[in-house]
Amino acid sequence: VRIETICTGDELLTGLTSDTNSRTFQALLLDLTGLTVRRSVVVGDVREDIIEALDAAAARCDAVLVSGGLGPTSDDLTAACAADAAGVELVESPEALAHLRARFAARGLAVTPNNLRQALVPRGAEVVLNPEGSAPLIIQQRGGCTFFFVPGVPREYHHLTQHHVVPRLAARLHGAPVRVLKLLKVVGLPESHLDARMTPLASKHPRLTFGYRTHPPENHLKLLAEAPTRAEALAALAAAELDARAVLGSHCFGADEESLAGAALQCLRQRQERLVLAESCTGGLVGALLTEVPGASEVLFGGVITYLDAAKLLWAEVPLELVSSAGAVSRACALAMAAGVREASGVAWSLSVTGFAGPDGGTADEPVGAVYVAVVGPGVQVVERHFFPGDRERVRRFAAHAALDLLRRTAQAQPG
Amino acid sequence: VRIETICTGDELLTGLTSDTNSRTFQALLLDLTGLTVRRSVVVGDVREDIIEALDAAAARCDAVLVSGGLGPTSDDLTAACAADAAGVELVESPEALAHLRARFAARGLAVTPNNLRQALVPRGAEVVLNPEGSAPLIIQQRGGCTFFFVPGVPREYHHLTQHHVVPRLAARLHGAPVRVLKLLKVVGLPESHLDARMTPLASKHPRLTFGYRTHPPENHLKLLAEAPTRAEALAALAAAELDARAVLGSHCFGADEESLAGAALQCLRQRQERLVLAESCTGGLVGALLTEVPGASEVLFGGVITYLDAAKLLWAEVPLELVSSAGAVSRACALAMAAGVREASGVAWSLSVTGFAGPDGGTADEPVGAVYVAVVGPGVQVVERHFFPGDRERVRRFAAHAALDLLRRTAQAQPG
Repeated sequence: VRIETICTGDELLTGLTSDTNSRTFQALLLDLTGLTVRRSVVVGDVREDIIEALDAAAARCDAVLVSGGLGPTSDDLTAACAADAAGVELVESPEALAHLRARFAARGLAVTPNNLRQALVPRGAEVVLNPEGSAPLIIQQRGGCTFFFVPGVPREYHHLTQHHVVPRLAARLHGAPVRVLKLLKVVGLPESHLDARMTPLASKHPRLTFGYRTHPPENHLKLLAEAPTRAEALAALAAAELDARAVLGSHCFGADEESLAGAALQCLRQRQERLVLAESCTGGLVGALLTEVPGASEVLFGGVITYLDAAKLLWAEVPLELVSSAGAVSRACALAMAAGVREASGVAWSLSVTGFAGPDGGTADEPVGAVYVAVVGPGVQVVERHFFPGDRERVRRFAAHAALDLLRRTAQAQPG
Repeated sequence: VRIETICTGDELLTGLTSDTNSRTFQALLLDLTGLTVRRSVVVGDVREDIIEALDAAAARCDAVLVSGGLGPTSDDLTAACAADAAGVELVESPEALAHLRARFAARGLAVTPNNLRQALVPRGAEVVLNPEGSAPLIIQQRGGCTFFFVPGVPREYHHLTQHHVVPRLAARLHGAPVRVLKLLKVVGLPESHLDARMTPLASKHPRLTFGYRTHPPENHLKLLAEAPTRAEALAALAAAELDARAVLGSHCFGADEESLAGAALQCLRQRQERLVLAESCTGGLVGALLTEVPGASEVLFGGVITYLDAAKLLWAEVPLELVSSAGAVSRACALAMAAGVREASGVAWSLSVTGFAGPDGGTADEPVGAVYVAVVGPGVQVVERHFFPGDRERVRRFAAHAALDLLRRTAQAQPG
């Protein structure tokens, strides 16, 4: 079953708005049917472009979801284009008109002549009334291709796709293969190394497609299983996930929507132990990432942003002599920050970061991009040096990520 | 000049990721050239679909931006498809190869055989090296159509489109009027009020187009000047900016790349006074925003993330009795946090935030979304209550923004 989407709207081509509707449709379609959209096209409110897109899709698709351009104003062209492209006229739908009049009456609004345009549909099309708005879902058959026309207003789009479009597509699929997708999230392995490690698994898992995407500093492995039934697809996916996780080891920190910060918090939550932070170059970024996760307060005590040396002394009890001898960006300072804030708070785990984020700063030994991360916990203390090339934003983002990852790996390796 | 975009990537069709790159390209193109993208197509990592999209675009466009599929892995097909579609072979680019080897060497990583694929380009194509990654920008001419192939990694995409693709497209428009753009950034004025305040200026500045963009919680005023020469455009822009700033007053905090955090830091930098933070619900986000700004260390002493009540006591000397009587989310607690951390650090200015970010928490009086921000400085102390509807991410983002804006307004209003 080949499915494409067409979104119409000038605002989607000028950087003002992005198409967020399609993403929810795609996810729903994949979840409920295992189908993926084959192509997604955005065109402006331009008559010839809309008709060209409809004709091209009709020639190659089984189903097309078209959104936008069903409003009451003069730049809403979709229904007229659908009629023209199919070589039929626009006719008034009595049900759509009655629904529209009832909606306006219920709101005490007058129906203006241009509102009536929303009851016009291509002759021969099926109409499904829209409880969220005045434009109906229009279903038009052209040869072997079914077009579903829905409004672009997110609330209406979501209602109609979820309750009418996706269920109708799912009903067509008896006998078609089912697809199920899982994302495994990986740190510390470049995309090319990840690919190389997965290659030997491909022949063992013929129902799986292995794909990759990079979200620096993370890389994600896409496992897409295809099988005659959902149960078989899920079984093939589970077997491949098991093998992939065995190969990836601790490089894999989570799946799907899990974040690295969430994974790090989860390690400590399971141990029923708390965390305290001491951040220099990241300036609060590690704390911000951790507290994005709902329920972070079950684990996070708090933290200190020790931006100046005086702040390192005040809150992390790092002696100024240590800073002047070893340097603020050093193994010794990172460990002292972590140990000091842990001592002051009485919390089981502490995590620290210090580095030169640039653009200025740095020394001959420790240039901009040099970062130390340290973890102190029950019976363990570790410190790592990293070097991250790039600008301030990149150094800070990678530094926060390295800190969270060190915490995760250290806590996982400690007996609970 | 007809321009289209093609994005490749299975993940853009399965609801996992949405294409946010195109939006920035479209906005930049419109701002700098006045051109809009005519059509935007997304296809998966499917050879025949990519080639079909390239061929269709070549037949009708003057320029096409193609993104994604230039990585080192087996599902990165774009360069090979570009060669096949044009009927040429893939050849190794010596510059791209040298660049790739140097990048890997600098990171101490081995170059694997599949990395070498990133140096392959269609014969006859121009190569522009990419300082942000290993895949170059590939420029391929097919008849009257120029294809620009860029990686999909946002950082690389943005760099290459901003510095190479858009300037080349702009250069084709010689003889056309010169356009210059300035963005004025505004807080505390809804977009419709901003529009209403600017309307009287339009007739006085005939060379200017006034546009608006909303970046919640900020609104941006786009001043686009068009004139036969750059000097005339700049003069018209400067005159309009002067008038606009007079109307906006302190609602306008900066222009173009300036951030609210940067504006707040600048107020204190001018006074040669320092800042200390106490954050609860934002968990380090205010610190992270401030330290994004290069040179933040000239102003920021540091801060504390007082996530638990015990942390409020330890670092901001907020008595537990105050928290239990007034509540952790209260006027009294916000002021005590700011006063406490200022006292402990001996710094001139302090800024605090406390609120309920959700999804759980909140009380009958102070539901999820309630946020207090406080500033204490030389001879001044202020506290504000806000209520931000929305999810955890939105409450935290708006809370951090409100805190920075209170600091900026308070410091600006204090005699220096």
